[in-house]
Amino acid sequence: MSASGGCIRPARPDDVGPVLSLMRGLAEYEHLTHLFLAREEDLLDALFGPHPAAECLVAEADGAVVGYALFFHNYSTFLGRRGLYLEDIYVRPDQRGRGLGKRMLKTLAAIAVERRCGRFEWSVLDWNQPAIDFYQAMGADVLPDWRIVRVTGDALIRLGTTGE
Amino acid sequence: MSASGGCIRPARPDDVGPVLSLMRGLAEYEHLTHLFLAREEDLLDALFGPHPAAECLVAEADGAVVGYALFFHNYSTFLGRRGLYLEDIYVRPDQRGRGLGKRMLKTLAAIAVERRCGRFEWSVLDWNQPAIDFYQAMGADVLPDWRIVRVTGDALIRLGTTGE
Repeated sequence: MSASGGCIRPARPDDVGPVLSLMRGLAEYEHLTHLFLAREEDLLDALFGPHPAAECLVAEADGAVVGYALFFHNYSTFLGRRGLYLEDIYVRPDQRGRGLGKRMLKTLAAIAVERRCGRFEWSVLDWNQPAIDFYQAMGADVLPDWRIVRVTGDALIRLGTTGE
Repeated sequence: MSASGGCIRPARPDDVGPVLSLMRGLAEYEHLTHLFLAREEDLLDALFGPHPAAECLVAEADGAVVGYALFFHNYSTFLGRRGLYLEDIYVRPDQRGRGLGKRMLKTLAAIAVERRCGRFEWSVLDWNQPAIDFYQAMGADVLPDWRIVRVTGDALIRLGTTGE
């Protein structure tokens, strides 16, 4: 607990339903609901199955899960060390301004330091200036020159199944 | 083996030295040698230690390791599925033009399909037009609107160790 109320803690299996609802909220904010396909069983397996693919923090306030941060490890060949990659961070709009997002980011940075990660990274949409300002105020750099390349859907199957 | 010669295979522990030399070559190409800190023991531990952080393919030609592709899994909350993330791909300049890079990318796409990954992703510098053209010709999208955010070094320690 802090002066602003609420708490940041690791997600539990019974948080998966509320977190999935928040994920849909994030997809709406990013105008990406057409890409949102995840089901509750997928998330349960990813976080709490026999081979976890990710970890998750939640922000709880007034007895409800009102925010989450889902992350996993990446690896930097240049540093020769693991990094921490934040896939999603989201706080419900009516709960913003009380510092929950910043507290999740600081908790993740502490996890990165404790695990000897060389970097803590995530991605932001270039039109999301409020988020960019928020991240830069905390000491983050927004890299201007890297672009993400993606192969998905039929193009991935085609690339992976045609001859060498 | 293919008509163009050479082979693509998973890296072995004795490839770590040659792969590290190629990594330095990539850092030079990207004008990022000042960020290159990795040592042979780091890479050996990341690929073959008790808790591997990444996997690696190598391209072998004329008995030498002349290229590599280092990758790990990420996770898409929107797809509810793992993805395959390619951290580095590199072919020694004197070995380019014989299709080794394309064969490594196709092998990685096949691994992604086999492991039921929803996406195969990597990053490219926006000034590296030859690479962008090469990736797009294979069906990849270069996402225009996402930017990578990074906290590292002292800023990471500061963010992770100051009070909530």
